[in-house]
Amino acid sequence: MGYVHGYSDYEAGRLRNSAHALSGLIHAQVRYPEGALVLEAPCGVGAQTEFLVGNNPGTRFVCADISEASVRVAMGQNPGLPFLAGDLYALPFPNATFDHVFACYVLEHLERPGRALENLLRVLKPGGTLTSVEGDHGSCFFYPETPEALAAWACLPELQALLGGDSLIGRRMYSVLAGAGFSDVWVEPIRIYCDPSLPRMMKGFVEDTIVGMLRGIESEVIERGMLDPAVFRKGVEDILAITTHPEGAFCYTFFRAVGSAPDR
Amino acid sequence: MGYVHGYSDYEAGRLRNSAHALSGLIHAQVRYPEGALVLEAPCGVGAQTEFLVGNNPGTRFVCADISEASVRVAMGQNPGLPFLAGDLYALPFPNATFDHVFACYVLEHLERPGRALENLLRVLKPGGTLTSVEGDHGSCFFYPETPEALAAWACLPELQALLGGDSLIGRRMYSVLAGAGFSDVWVEPIRIYCDPSLPRMMKGFVEDTIVGMLRGIESEVIERGMLDPAVFRKGVEDILAITTHPEGAFCYTFFRAVGSAPDR
Repeated sequence: MGYVHGYSDYEAGRLRNSAHALSGLIHAQVRYPEGALVLEAPCGVGAQTEFLVGNNPGTRFVCADISEASVRVAMGQNPGLPFLAGDLYALPFPNATFDHVFACYVLEHLERPGRALENLLRVLKPGGTLTSVEGDHGSCFFYPETPEALAAWACLPELQALLGGDSLIGRRMYSVLAGAGFSDVWVEPIRIYCDPSLPRMMKGFVEDTIVGMLRGIESEVIERGMLDPAVFRKGVEDILAITTHPEGAFCYTFFRAVGSAPDR
Repeated sequence: MGYVHGYSDYEAGRLRNSAHALSGLIHAQVRYPEGALVLEAPCGVGAQTEFLVGNNPGTRFVCADISEASVRVAMGQNPGLPFLAGDLYALPFPNATFDHVFACYVLEHLERPGRALENLLRVLKPGGTLTSVEGDHGSCFFYPETPEALAAWACLPELQALLGGDSLIGRRMYSVLAGAGFSDVWVEPIRIYCDPSLPRMMKGFVEDTIVGMLRGIESEVIERGMLDPAVFRKGVEDILAITTHPEGAFCYTFFRAVGSAPDR
């Protein structure tokens, strides 16, 4: 399975910019007790790790990612933390190792999200929690809305599906977690909203996150012939123009799901 | 201009069921000081009035609606309150009469929402606030998603547009209020989210509010030839089936905007 956003330096920078813009919303309520042992998997380039550690100074984190290159970047950004390469489908930990698990922006990329969740459940102690954060690319709406902007944006879920993922997984988080065996599943939508009174969100979310994602897939969209290059580029420019339009607006929904490991 | 939902008893019941299901979300933070004089316009059949009055026991409310029939229903539901028939474009009050104004689910139905807002601004005292709540029918996404469900749902904004309204106005609330002359405009998305762990929201929102709206426009959709009747009916049934589907999910966004009357 391919990772739709790739592993470039450009992408590592985009992930960090996006994590900064959204940290208050994504990490609200993600608080762990002193001394708890928490797995972050996958950690990617460590873009979320900084906020996990900053918000939970007494917690012991272990961070794992399938990409050794990403792990090296993450270690450079977060010195002193235990990082290791590890596949979500075959985590190198005994059963019931961790008090809690944090998993961000991953299920949408997987062909078997339920299988990955079962593995995360396996390494959780009974009563421990999984916090899982995902987007939903079908949740997006904006103003002004041009046909080219809609067509360019539609390339992202389409490409994700071609790679075996599901970028509309956000809306299904309840049933995906419950189906994997988690109990007391609770899902909260995290709504991103930008208007002209919120220029920092326009920059951090629409420009750095959304337009950033689209620019990152441009060459693949064109190589695969998914959309006329001129239409794609105009669509991306139209979305960028929302950020400074006097009546511009942009909405998107992430979902944060929390489920517990049942007693065995 | 026609009112897309009509003025039937069926519709009055739908509005009350919906208001009950959503009252906690729509009326959160809508609190007025003791003794303040607040205009609710339009009040419709009084579906929101009950919550305004219940949450603000010391506030003096005046309620107005363009439909005398609706005003009579509202008076029956909320005895003792001053209700009167009044057109948003020509409100029968002197300038600077009210401390605050509450306007719910109205701008989407108007050909000139800015003109209505200017009239509401005229009757507000300087420093007084307008609270305006609107939906956005383009904000809706759900699971499972069938072509018929998408087609049936699309009839609602299409019919609204044919009648001169804009059911995608929610995303534009910031610029619509700012353009009408309100200052310090602040917009908050109100995210409705339903999954199998939330059967009361599934019933109150998806069945009573969403399916209710669609059933209310069925005859008009068919008369106007907007969609094949069998497709429309299957689409509505598909949306209803979400409410009991083991993996069902439904999301919608309302917007609550607050703006202040500037000093003159």
